[in-house]
Amino acid sequence: LRIRVVLVGIEGSMNLGVIVRTCKNFNVDEIFLVKPSADLGEASRYVAKASDLFERMIIVDDLEDALKNIDLVVATSAKGYGVGDVLRQALSLDDFLEIIKKGVNSLAILFGRESTGLTRDEIMHADLLVTIPANPEYPVLNVSQAVAIFLYELWKLRGFETTNIPPRIGRSDFENLMKLVDNITRMIVSDEAKAKRLSLTWRRVLYRSRLSVYEDRLLVYWFRRVLSRLRRSYSG
Amino acid sequence: LRIRVVLVGIEGSMNLGVIVRTCKNFNVDEIFLVKPSADLGEASRYVAKASDLFERMIIVDDLEDALKNIDLVVATSAKGYGVGDVLRQALSLDDFLEIIKKGVNSLAILFGRESTGLTRDEIMHADLLVTIPANPEYPVLNVSQAVAIFLYELWKLRGFETTNIPPRIGRSDFENLMKLVDNITRMIVSDEAKAKRLSLTWRRVLYRSRLSVYEDRLLVYWFRRVLSRLRRSYSG
Repeated sequence: LRIRVVLVGIEGSMNLGVIVRTCKNFNVDEIFLVKPSADLGEASRYVAKASDLFERMIIVDDLEDALKNIDLVVATSAKGYGVGDVLRQALSLDDFLEIIKKGVNSLAILFGRESTGLTRDEIMHADLLVTIPANPEYPVLNVSQAVAIFLYELWKLRGFETTNIPPRIGRSDFENLMKLVDNITRMIVSDEAKAKRLSLTWRRVLYRSRLSVYEDRLLVYWFRRVLSRLRRSYSG
Repeated sequence: LRIRVVLVGIEGSMNLGVIVRTCKNFNVDEIFLVKPSADLGEASRYVAKASDLFERMIIVDDLEDALKNIDLVVATSAKGYGVGDVLRQALSLDDFLEIIKKGVNSLAILFGRESTGLTRDEIMHADLLVTIPANPEYPVLNVSQAVAIFLYELWKLRGFETTNIPPRIGRSDFENLMKLVDNITRMIVSDEAKAKRLSLTWRRVLYRSRLSVYEDRLLVYWFRRVLSRLRRSYSG
């Protein structure tokens, strides 16, 4: 799924910089600016390590020039619902993601101005209108926040590899850990029914905690130490 | 689930303002600032309609004072994984949400400085470390972006009502719409097997599109017009 972020009339320079950075964080392929009023020089101060994406941004005068070679165009708005307004019959972000799952190859997402969002005419250019549900008292998100939420959800959907989460243990590591625990249990509990209950409890507790490989190694160390002490105390 | 956002040493005034706004967007209950270096006056310019929450912020000098009366404390970091580093064995945001589902009453989420994040000592104060998975090339999100993603996910989990998404049609509206479509089909297709296939196709197409009440009303109007024209042409 190729993703193009289209910022229409973006006003804030820091917002623009932070959005480019967020686009890099979540593997956006292209950024188009339609008639930006933000200061690009100022914006570049906030892109951090996303300067490659910043340099590749394409600036156009017409929204239509930003929508070429795209399968699906979605407009975004905090005003997702207007009674009797056919334009404002939005999908929630989650419902939209369900639709995207079914074989869209390229997607353009339109975000509007900080002050007034997208115009009705601009929304008409899109196939769908999508809204992030939020507090009815105040559902209007800052545009860079909305971009972050959209892109994170799409990033998860696309199933990229990541390296900032530790690898989790697999089945065999888990069973080895359980074997150790059960060995200890057998040494300290003679009642078999009770031992079974303890085994089940440990299994559930350890499984739920979603151990990383390294955490597992530390726990294995700890249980082994306990086991060897117990053996010594029994034999001694 | 009561949510407290704890910003440790926040530096950027615009970031602070935008975070407070985001907290309002997603029904955060309390905001604590630990030794902020941001300019509060400047920050207030970016809170938009969240000034009530801004006024209620609590500023403390010690992290521990920000963690009182809380069931579960989570630290956040882009560095979720360090080889052989017991501190950096993070859960992904999604895995964390799974845990939260099981009866946590109050949650504090710690976000660190823009420049250097949370210190190791600060992370030690938390029960869990949670990371938003992102592009391995550059996984470090701006803090206000990270806050938005966290709070949106928690907001969904808590199941609040929303008003910026239009109400969807229920079962009976859907069946009424299908009846109309089938009536038309019967008038224009005589082969029964083909009519059944068309009926099924329409059912799936219309179901997938998750019609809003208003969209349904417009389609009902359209199908009725078609039907009445057809009837006239048949009788005329």
